[in-house]
Amino acid sequence: VSETTKTRIGIVGYGNLGRGVETALRNSPDQELVAVFTRRDPASLSLAYSGVPVVPLADVEQWKGKVDVMILAGGSATDLPEQGPDLALHFNTVDSFDTHADIPVYFDKVNARAREGHHLALISVGWDPGMFSLQRAYAQAILPDGDTQTFWGRGVSQGHSDAIRRIEGVENGVQYTVPIEDAVRAARAGLGAKLTTRDKHHRVAYVVAAPGADLERIEREIKTMPKYFADYDTTVNFISAEELARDHQGMPHGGFVVHSGWSSDGTQHTIEYKLNLDSNPEFTGAVLAAYARALWRLWNAGERGAKTVLDIAPALLSPKEGAELRAELL
Amino acid sequence: VSETTKTRIGIVGYGNLGRGVETALRNSPDQELVAVFTRRDPASLSLAYSGVPVVPLADVEQWKGKVDVMILAGGSATDLPEQGPDLALHFNTVDSFDTHADIPVYFDKVNARAREGHHLALISVGWDPGMFSLQRAYAQAILPDGDTQTFWGRGVSQGHSDAIRRIEGVENGVQYTVPIEDAVRAARAGLGAKLTTRDKHHRVAYVVAAPGADLERIEREIKTMPKYFADYDTTVNFISAEELARDHQGMPHGGFVVHSGWSSDGTQHTIEYKLNLDSNPEFTGAVLAAYARALWRLWNAGERGAKTVLDIAPALLSPKEGAELRAELL
Repeated sequence: VSETTKTRIGIVGYGNLGRGVETALRNSPDQELVAVFTRRDPASLSLAYSGVPVVPLADVEQWKGKVDVMILAGGSATDLPEQGPDLALHFNTVDSFDTHADIPVYFDKVNARAREGHHLALISVGWDPGMFSLQRAYAQAILPDGDTQTFWGRGVSQGHSDAIRRIEGVENGVQYTVPIEDAVRAARAGLGAKLTTRDKHHRVAYVVAAPGADLERIEREIKTMPKYFADYDTTVNFISAEELARDHQGMPHGGFVVHSGWSSDGTQHTIEYKLNLDSNPEFTGAVLAAYARALWRLWNAGERGAKTVLDIAPALLSPKEGAELRAELL
Repeated sequence: VSETTKTRIGIVGYGNLGRGVETALRNSPDQELVAVFTRRDPASLSLAYSGVPVVPLADVEQWKGKVDVMILAGGSATDLPEQGPDLALHFNTVDSFDTHADIPVYFDKVNARAREGHHLALISVGWDPGMFSLQRAYAQAILPDGDTQTFWGRGVSQGHSDAIRRIEGVENGVQYTVPIEDAVRAARAGLGAKLTTRDKHHRVAYVVAAPGADLERIEREIKTMPKYFADYDTTVNFISAEELARDHQGMPHGGFVVHSGWSSDGTQHTIEYKLNLDSNPEFTGAVLAAYARALWRLWNAGERGAKTVLDIAPALLSPKEGAELRAELL
C-alpha cells in the first residue's frame, strides 16, 4: 500500500482508549493517523507515538475532506451520546458505545445524522459489545435451541473502580470482576438460564483509604451500592497506596461467551469464545482500527447510515484480498 | 413466518451429514425441507424425520424453481468436485467442501458455473473450514502481530478411521485425534509458530482385528502410514467388536483456534474459540442450514457467484431482524 492511498484516520479523544487506537494503527499497513482531536488544551497533550497535529475538537469541521474515518474514543456516559450523532453528520465514524440498554436509541440517532451527511457510522465496536456480540449471534443462529451466557473477567472494571473512588474517605481503588467457576460449569452444561446475577460473578475491590477514614463504613457503602455492587458478593481489601501502585496498575480484562445448545434430543454442543487481554484499551483500540478498515471499504461501496459489527462481513476487516484469505485462512 | 414464505431447501446426499442437515431444519422457523436427492435407489432410503420425496439425483433438474437452496451433503473427495460446479449452474447451493489445499481451484470452478446460471454458491461451510476460518480471520485482522494455531479434537476423524479399516486384517476401527496439552499451552503463550505437526496432536486408534490376524503388522502399518499417521505419535488399542459398539459409536468432535498476539511490546492478548460437539454431522448440518438462510437473503438482494463464510455478515445467519439483534445481542 503506497503512502498516498492509506486511509486517513482521526482519533477523537485521547484517554486510554485513544492511546490504544494510536497504538493499534502502528500495526496497520493501510491506515495512517492524521490528527488527534481533543476538548482539552492541545498543548497539554503529548502523543505516545505520533507526530501528528493535536487539534481542538471545536475545529473538527475544518478537517472535513482530510480525514476518511474518525475513530471516537470518548466514553459512553457523556461523550458519545453527543459526539456520535454530531460527528456522523460530518465524517465517517467508528465508536465503542457500550451502554447496552441504550444502543437502540443511540443507533437511531447516529443513523439519522449519518444518512443526512451521506456518511457511514459503525457503533458499539469493541469486545463487548463487539466481538462478544458476534459470537452470541453466530452461536444462536447455529443452535437456536440453547442458552448463551457471557462472563467478564478476571479483569478491571473502570466503571466499578470509579464508583469506589467516589466514596468519601477513599483515596484510590481498583475493582476486579471475577467469574464464578460453578456458574461457568453450569453454562457449559446448558444450565445457564437458571443462573442469577449473583451466581455468575463476584467482585473484588482493592481500596486505599484516607488516613483515619472509617473502614467499616467504606466497606458497607461499597457492598450495598445499588446497581454496582448490591447484587453481587463483593470482597473489599484495604491496601496501601504503594501496594496499589505496585500490583494494580495494568488494565487487564477479558471474559468469555458460552453457548450450550442442542441439535436434537440429547445431542449437545458447546461453543466458547474467550478473550484474555493484557490491556483492555489496547485491544479495544485494535478492534476499532480493524473495523475502520471495513467501514472505509463499505463507504466507498456506497453504504450509508449506521451499522454494527453484526452487519460487517469478516473479510472486510483484513487488509488481505479475498483470494489470499481463501488460500490462507479458510 | 407463514408456511408459504418459508425458504424451500433441498438436501443432496443422505449420509451422516445429510441427516444432520435434516435434523437442523427441524429447529428452523423459516425454512422447510422439500426434497432429498440421492444417487442410491430412493426406495432404499427412509428419512429420519421428514415425509418429503426422495428423488434420484439424475432428476434434479426437474426441481428447478421448486427448491430455493440446495444443501450439498456429499463428500469432498469425489462427490463435491463434480456436484458443486454442476449444481451451482441450476440452483443456489451451500456445501461443506473441506479439502483446504483445493479450495482456491474449487472456488473458481463453482464461481464460474454459479455466475453462468445466475446463482449464488456458498462453499466450505461448516466448522473447519467454516466457523474456525472466521475466527482465524477476525483474530488476525485485530492482532496482525501474532500467531494462530488450530487444534482438533478430542474427536473422531472419519478419514483416519476409514484409512485404518482399509488395512488387511482389520474388521473395524475408530480413530481419535487428541490435542497435546503442552502444545496448547505454547500456542496460548504465543509460541505456536515453533510447533511441529507431531507436537500438536496425537492419534489414538481403537481397532477390531480379524481372528488370527497379525496384530504387530497391523499396528506397524497404521503407525507408518504416510500422510495419515507417519507424522504423528499414534497409540493403537486392539479391542473387541462388542467394546467398539459399546464405547465408540458416537461421532463427537471439536477443537479450538488459539490466536496469541501483541498490540505493543510486552502487551499480549489471547483469543480462543472452542467447539465441543456431541455430533460432528449434526453440528455441521446446523451451520449449513444457518448459512442457507444468509445465502437466500443475499441471492434475493442480487448477489451472484461463489462466496465463503468470510464474505457473510453475521446478522444474515439469524432469523431475527436487525433491530431485534441490536436490542438483544449487541
